[in-house]
This record gives sequence, structure tokens and C-alpha cells, in this order.
Amino acid sequence: METVSENRCFGGVQGVYRHASAVCGCDMTFGLFMPPQAASGPVPLLWYLSGLTCTHENAMTKAAAQGWAAEAGLALCFPDTSPRGADIADDAAYDLGQGAGFYVDATQTPWAPHFNMWSYVTEELPRALDAAFPVDPERQAIMGHSMGGHGALTVAMNHPGRFASVSAFAPISHPVASDWGRKQFTAYLGADEGTWTRHDATLLMQAGGFDGPVLIDQGSEDQFLDLLRPGDLAQAMAARVQDGQFRIQKGYDHSYWFMQSFMEDHIAFHAEALGL
Amino acid sequence: METVSENRCFGGVQGVYRHASAVCGCDMTFGLFMPPQAASGPVPLLWYLSGLTCTHENAMTKAAAQGWAAEAGLALCFPDTSPRGADIADDAAYDLGQGAGFYVDATQTPWAPHFNMWSYVTEELPRALDAAFPVDPERQAIMGHSMGGHGALTVAMNHPGRFASVSAFAPISHPVASDWGRKQFTAYLGADEGTWTRHDATLLMQAGGFDGPVLIDQGSEDQFLDLLRPGDLAQAMAARVQDGQFRIQKGYDHSYWFMQSFMEDHIAFHAEALGL
Repeated sequence: METVSENRCFGGVQGVYRHASAVCGCDMTFGLFMPPQAASGPVPLLWYLSGLTCTHENAMTKAAAQGWAAEAGLALCFPDTSPRGADIADDAAYDLGQGAGFYVDATQTPWAPHFNMWSYVTEELPRALDAAFPVDPERQAIMGHSMGGHGALTVAMNHPGRFASVSAFAPISHPVASDWGRKQFTAYLGADEGTWTRHDATLLMQAGGFDGPVLIDQGSEDQFLDLLRPGDLAQAMAARVQDGQFRIQKGYDHSYWFMQSFMEDHIAFHAEALGL
Repeated sequence: METVSENRCFGGVQGVYRHASAVCGCDMTFGLFMPPQAASGPVPLLWYLSGLTCTHENAMTKAAAQGWAAEAGLALCFPDTSPRGADIADDAAYDLGQGAGFYVDATQTPWAPHFNMWSYVTEELPRALDAAFPVDPERQAIMGHSMGGHGALTVAMNHPGRFASVSAFAPISHPVASDWGRKQFTAYLGADEGTWTRHDATLLMQAGGFDGPVLIDQGSEDQFLDLLRPGDLAQAMAARVQDGQFRIQKGYDHSYWFMQSFMEDHIAFHAEALGL
């Protein structure tokens, strides 16, 4: 585990670290905020999965989450969104390849050797954090934005018991019915749509939902409403009376200005679910 | 006044605007956050002057000030740090030329035609804001970081009665005695050090100080302590019993992680001085 940088922040430490990832077959970089409470013992961990084109750095720098996390006593992990490197497959489009891992394990050429973000964020990186930092694996929650909201919701619903809560800003909500989904699942997982089901938040919500509270914020002026399909997820949540809230935030778009505006709510939501 | 972008943020609007600057002889871009309270009338204005290498965007994106400003009902203006353009003088060093205006009006070749950031931030941009946005020119305060802390302190002390309060993170405190100052003042203002005096916070503090409260935060692990010379300013403040506080923040460095950690304090300080 290589330390790229560490800066004092809200009485804790905002770090950036690099490690060799076996599942991605390359070095991976992530951000980790450790709150001041970590000085006296393991702290709960909130995952933040980012959206298309992002690295570990975007949300870490722009989402203004650290102050609220410090107050609550939560660690925040900001993983990258894909493997990266000159020798790793890529695509000219912003929504496929590097920066667009979609939180799946690819089975198709040329993606399969490196694009295994599902295993990375659910297995390899959690183990690496447990080994190197005072985080408590028994107290975790997860959130994300856009493609990362898709990631957070699908990871949470596929791992009952692991996360106390899940939240998302403007998640890709029904990828099997959207061009943000069909294109990438075809490329990474192949044409058999049966392999896509466990990576679709609306289908998972219909099939069983999440065993804890869910918080979704969606801006009314989001420029990607057609691709995100928030209505499908809201319908599925209401139909199964999922514990949680689906909030339309009037006037907000898809940007980090939206996320930072409601970050206090999301951190407080997870802190409460974690018993903080 | 051209609108580059506007995003809903904390119930207000984070905008970026571009306008033709006569004093800089080029188009200038700035960020302006208008809080929700601006919908019902003019609001007080807090200036944020940025440091070396920054554009209008760095503090706007990384300082996490908007939430506190929205709560207090303050507008925030983030000017650029210099004129910019391919046809405008520059220097290969990061600390001279574009991105390093030092908040002076240059009198020397080749800088004089464009490098007039003093007149820009004290006269031209305030007039442009008054004309285009519901800000109250009778209620202003000013803050900044590093080179922008130097700018905030020198602008405030040269304009008694204009600003209710001034604050700075890690300001360049005594530029006439530092390589962050002597080099730039020589280039922009010439060898006559008499022209430098009104641009030195420590000398201004010794000569008369500020007619309101002052708040300075300085990280103990700042990598530029030798260039910033915080002790000279602290000594001058204490010697004249200047209303205010000089705080050493243990473990913090020169970065935005430091600034965002104490932004709540600074906004609350200015809000109180403005009677909010």
C-alpha cells in the first residue's frame, strides 16, 4: 500500500493510496478519509462509488462530505471507477472502458482481463482496507452518484447483511432498459441478458429490495433523466413498500453542486442507520 | 456579462460569468454564489481571493464554502487571480505572470498593460457585480488564501469603511521581506520599494491596522512557512492590539483540505461582523 498523499482535514486525514490490484491486473488508486475518531479505535466505513469519467478524486474533492463524516465519526472510501493504464483496453466513448467500469466483472473480450470492478469494490478493496486501516467491517454503508449510484444499489442488494444502509444521487436506475446500461452490459457481459439482472437496481428492487433503509435524491433538472430512468426505481420501491425515501429535488441538475447540497442529509442518514 | 454556467446549489445558484475587463484589457471570468435569500432582495457580499496558480474555479470547487454562505445569506465572489490569454505577458515561473497577479496594478514592462488586479478587484468587478446581481455594496467582507490572503488583507486595510471584516488562510504576510513578494513587486511595481508599502499586510498592520475584526488561520505543517512569514503579521497584530484572532491550526498544511476544515468558522466570523 503506497501513500500518494495525506492531508489533515477536519481533524482527521484525507489520504490517497495506491495498491496492486490482482482482480484488475493493474495498480489502483483510491481516496480514504479517516475521521478524528479513528485515533481511538476502528470506525464505521461509508463507501462512495463515483460516476462516469470520474477517478477517485472527483467526489473526494467536490462532494464536501468530509466535514459531515468527521462529525459523525465515519470513514469515507472513494474508489476509482475502472482499471487504468496504457496497456489496458479502452474505448473512445466516455461511457465505455476506462472511467466507465459500471461495477461489473467483465466476461467478454477485450474487457475480461482487467474490468472487474465488482470484485474489486466488493472483495479486494474491502480486504485491503481492513488490513491497513482502522475500519470496522461489521459497520458499513454505501452510496454513490449516477453510475456509482447504480453500483451502490446493486452492490448493496446483492450483499444482504453487509451494509446498514444505501443511498444514491441520481442513480442509473434501470440499466437493462437504458442506453446507459445496454451498451455497457453487452460489451462487458455479453448478449445473454440473464447475466445482467443482478446488476439492475430496478430489477433487484422488484425481486427483493434492500434489507435496510434506502435514500434516493434526484434533481428535477437533471440533464440525463431519460438515461437514468428514476421513475422505474421509484415505482419498484413504492410497489414493494421498501423502507426508504425517494426525493425529487427541485431545480437541481446532475452535478456535484447538487450532491454537496444534500450531502449532510446523506451522511446523517447513514450515521443513523449505523447507530452513530 | 456572459453566463458560462449556472447550477442550483444549497437552494441558491453557483454561477460562472465572463465579462470584458477594461482595466485588464481582456475577458475575465469569475464565480459567484448567490444564496437563496437573494430571491427576496440584495444580500451581503463576501469576496474570496485565491492563491498562486488558481483560477476562479479552485476555491469555488474545493473550499466547501457555499453551504455555510447559504445558511448565513451571503453571496460569495471568486475572482480570477490575473488577466489571461495567449497575447498577454506571462512567465515560465508559477509565481509570476498569469495565475500570479498579486493584487497590484503593474507599472512596469511588460506587465503594465494588463496586470491591474488591484483596480479589477477593488473597482471594476465590484461595479460589474452591483450592476448585474442583487448584492448590497454597503455590506461587504473579504477573505483569501495565500497570495489571496495577502490580497484580502491589503485591499481591506487600504479601504477603511468598505469591509466589515477580513480573514485569511495562510496569507503571504510580509511580502517585502519574502521571495513571495520581492520578486513580484520588483517585476510589477519596479525597484522603488516605496511603491510596495501599501501592498504589504505587515507594514499596513504596523501603520494603522484594520478598522474591524481580523481572523487569520495558519497551519502548523504549512510547507511554505518561510515564504509566508506568519510571525511578522502576528507580531504586528499583537503589537497594535488589533481586534481579531491569529490561530495556529496544528497539523494542517497549505491545501484546500485545510481551508475547508475551517470554512464554517470564517463564514460565521464574517456573518457576525455583517450583523447577520
